[in-house]
Amino acid sequence: MITGKNYIGNVLSSLGNITYKTFNPQTNLENEIIYTEASTIEIQAAVELATEAFKTFKIVSGDKKNNFLNEIANEIEALGDELIKMYCSESGLPEGRAIGERSRTIFQLRSFANLVKEGSWVEATIDTAQPNREPIPKVDIRKMLIPLGPVVVFGASNFPLAYSTAGGDTAAAFAAGCPVIVKSHPMHAGTGELVASAIINAALKTGMPNGVFSNLNSSGIEVGQILVKHPEVKAVGFTGSIRGGRALYDIAAQRDEPIPVFAEMGSVNPVVLLPKATKNKRNEWAKTYADSITLGSGQFCTNPGLILGIKSDELANFIYILSEEIVKIEPSCMLHPNIIGAYESNKANMQNQKGLETTANVSKDVSANYGRQMITTVEGATFLENTVLHQEVFGPFSMIVQCESIEQLELIISKLEGQLTGTILAEDNEIRNYQNIVSALQNRVGRIIFNGVPTGVEVCPAMVHGGPYPASTDSRFTAVGINSIKRWVRPFSFQNWPNELLPDELKNENPLKISRLVDGVQTF
Amino acid sequence: MITGKNYIGNVLSSLGNITYKTFNPQTNLENEIIYTEASTIEIQAAVELATEAFKTFKIVSGDKKNNFLNEIANEIEALGDELIKMYCSESGLPEGRAIGERSRTIFQLRSFANLVKEGSWVEATIDTAQPNREPIPKVDIRKMLIPLGPVVVFGASNFPLAYSTAGGDTAAAFAAGCPVIVKSHPMHAGTGELVASAIINAALKTGMPNGVFSNLNSSGIEVGQILVKHPEVKAVGFTGSIRGGRALYDIAAQRDEPIPVFAEMGSVNPVVLLPKATKNKRNEWAKTYADSITLGSGQFCTNPGLILGIKSDELANFIYILSEEIVKIEPSCMLHPNIIGAYESNKANMQNQKGLETTANVSKDVSANYGRQMITTVEGATFLENTVLHQEVFGPFSMIVQCESIEQLELIISKLEGQLTGTILAEDNEIRNYQNIVSALQNRVGRIIFNGVPTGVEVCPAMVHGGPYPASTDSRFTAVGINSIKRWVRPFSFQNWPNELLPDELKNENPLKISRLVDGVQTF
Repeated sequence: MITGKNYIGNVLSSLGNITYKTFNPQTNLENEIIYTEASTIEIQAAVELATEAFKTFKIVSGDKKNNFLNEIANEIEALGDELIKMYCSESGLPEGRAIGERSRTIFQLRSFANLVKEGSWVEATIDTAQPNREPIPKVDIRKMLIPLGPVVVFGASNFPLAYSTAGGDTAAAFAAGCPVIVKSHPMHAGTGELVASAIINAALKTGMPNGVFSNLNSSGIEVGQILVKHPEVKAVGFTGSIRGGRALYDIAAQRDEPIPVFAEMGSVNPVVLLPKATKNKRNEWAKTYADSITLGSGQFCTNPGLILGIKSDELANFIYILSEEIVKIEPSCMLHPNIIGAYESNKANMQNQKGLETTANVSKDVSANYGRQMITTVEGATFLENTVLHQEVFGPFSMIVQCESIEQLELIISKLEGQLTGTILAEDNEIRNYQNIVSALQNRVGRIIFNGVPTGVEVCPAMVHGGPYPASTDSRFTAVGINSIKRWVRPFSFQNWPNELLPDELKNENPLKISRLVDGVQTF
Repeated sequence: MITGKNYIGNVLSSLGNITYKTFNPQTNLENEIIYTEASTIEIQAAVELATEAFKTFKIVSGDKKNNFLNEIANEIEALGDELIKMYCSESGLPEGRAIGERSRTIFQLRSFANLVKEGSWVEATIDTAQPNREPIPKVDIRKMLIPLGPVVVFGASNFPLAYSTAGGDTAAAFAAGCPVIVKSHPMHAGTGELVASAIINAALKTGMPNGVFSNLNSSGIEVGQILVKHPEVKAVGFTGSIRGGRALYDIAAQRDEPIPVFAEMGSVNPVVLLPKATKNKRNEWAKTYADSITLGSGQFCTNPGLILGIKSDELANFIYILSEEIVKIEPSCMLHPNIIGAYESNKANMQNQKGLETTANVSKDVSANYGRQMITTVEGATFLENTVLHQEVFGPFSMIVQCESIEQLELIISKLEGQLTGTILAEDNEIRNYQNIVSALQNRVGRIIFNGVPTGVEVCPAMVHGGPYPASTDSRFTAVGINSIKRWVRPFSFQNWPNELLPDELKNENPLKISRLVDGVQTF
């Protein structure tokens, strides 16, 4: 069923000369299928088709988008075991994770399907005319959200389904009315092609225009660069490294017409362990965090890579217990030799930093590509002086900073780069005494957690997955939840427009029965 | 009362060496007051104060922000005639315009005051816990919009009040909870200082933290550059030229931590004159557009600088009547010698373009700095070939493009840069036959107008003042209306947070009685 080809709209195509294979980190062997990277001609064709498709897709009704999104979910379900096996063979992740991530992907697609069927998401706003207003009459103005145009989505290495081909970015863009061109992640090109086939089938079954979706293979950075530079591409979604995301952001910002890039990038997700919690709950938190740090081999963007506490015997004991607990956990397979290679060299780089002490370092022999967890610790002053210590080590790694004082801890928070999450671990009412810490942490993160772990990102309307740079390139948006649709839309006003020519969302008679703001009053 | 000094927070300061004066274009003489440009030390001090002020201002209640914003409006009103006289002496604009713009400014401030008092603008969203959910429990997550941090606002040359010191950008930023540092426009430094004094008085009277506002004088580009580069500045608002806005956008995008820049820049505001309207209503539209093109000496960002029609005897007659009508209008004073200088050289540059014909050119002697209107026309093919013809001539200038066919007209629209507005002039039902034109125009603009003029931007919730680049640097936001607050805020999630420590907006008991989305249902 897998062809190794690109989908240029509805057509499978492989005109290019560059080929590559994916890799199974569990077997430490290349997979057999050969993928052909998209050629310049195919990239151009995909963008032209998307531009043409936008003319009709931008005004497709919510009901029809609902059908399309639900049908994508159905088609992904229909892929059955083939998809799960392909996912595992390209990621080294266990079957349970594959099945869970498929559920999440389907849930996201169906959530957006429901959103567009209901229809109120367009924020319809109507200010009716006042022809007799003095000194000048007021004209009729009506506003709603409309799609930006073709969106390019870059698949994530660590979420082959939920943040890749038909993941959150794609589902949100389709819901908005934007055609999508996916730059397939080279590590899971087969998973990508299977999901792409599901999207194409769904598009054909539900009568979507050819070009509403394309899937482009790539083994390097060129395909993505050409896409982001293309004048007809109007927005970009990316999940991955700071280096990769920033490179795309820079290209987009340097265009004649700059376009929005929403890149969700690295984060060390600081955790603040307050003194009473350290004293009374260090055992429980050590065990909980040993699990959180190693969950999915530490390959989550919300992995807790930095724990801040006040230097004390109790904190030393927490570090000891955490180190003891974490070495008991069996190492697990990482996504790709490149990922584990980076993990090992990043760990070594950290260990070379002055003042860093390693308190847990699994050194036993493990299968190739298995990530061995590490816990390190450093003094607050040392951490402040050396920003290398602030960088993310992607994998099952964490660093505990032993601060001299609460003031130093607050200073450290204020010097951190932007983060997806921040966590406060506290006993009873002690958090009341640390409002400066909470305030400083809020300035640096997109989501703040009380007595919990940052891993596990619930897909719900109240979720913010994003945050100040470099957690994301624009903290004003979230990558998770229905509000992520806002990344791909813009407000648009109709002035004095004939009622019968207005979109249904803005007609006087409100045929879609959506909630609207009419002359300043929310109506239902 | 005017000191020529900067407000560094609440303190008047003039440590710098660079001084300048403003200019009265009506008398063609410099005004007397000497202004001192902000020095590097003062810029740094203003940003530090704003950063410190943000710690408390970001959590000031809606009621207190309401008091602050209303008090600014009161203080501006209390400036009385002194403000109006200063405005006129620095802009050459008539007293009626000054009074009207003051009303608009006050209306904007009071609109935002009402918005924050009511409080629902924060989009509070609550997803309650489901501890028994399978396979994993659901945690409690609550989201609201919070301010970004210190915002730098660049005053506009053509709106000394409504889009400058206490204009829309500043009012929206205060409403959001962001301290504001204004880079005062050098052409109206006195108007700026008066309004700044009103803001400072209001801040003192209503107990706002020192540093919530600063006003920095500048005669060149350096002050603005230093501000946009400063790591503690978190967003930028700008209204002005493409060159100026793009330069700031580029600086912001190249920072280690890129920040959002909302720049509202140039636009030629294309108007499409459909054939039946040309045939039946050319007289009326010619008169209406003669007025619109010359309104405020053509110094509106929504000035109609480009009119597209199908070549015909009737269109030739429209051009003739428009040219006849426009020369009857008395030229009026432009904002500054620099503005009229640019206007004259841009007109000359257009006249040098091959194929451009001038059909109206007021050549009579006028007072210094008075802008003489011009109408030009060109063939569609010529316009398509030469993008110089697509550029804005800021002032009472317009160009009529005579297209060979409706297909050529559509092609021209698709080749235009992004625009604030697009207008369709049509008879009865003829617009039904031109849906491709409407669709193409929608892709290029932020607001579309039926049978009207683009000048006149109503301040109301349904207004979009923005559009695809270069109309603005981010089409996902508007510069006018209450939704312009979205430029300065980001969503933020609290997970498992103790109820008593949540902001009032998110507490179980909803003490502010705002509208919230609770478990997917909008509540009131």
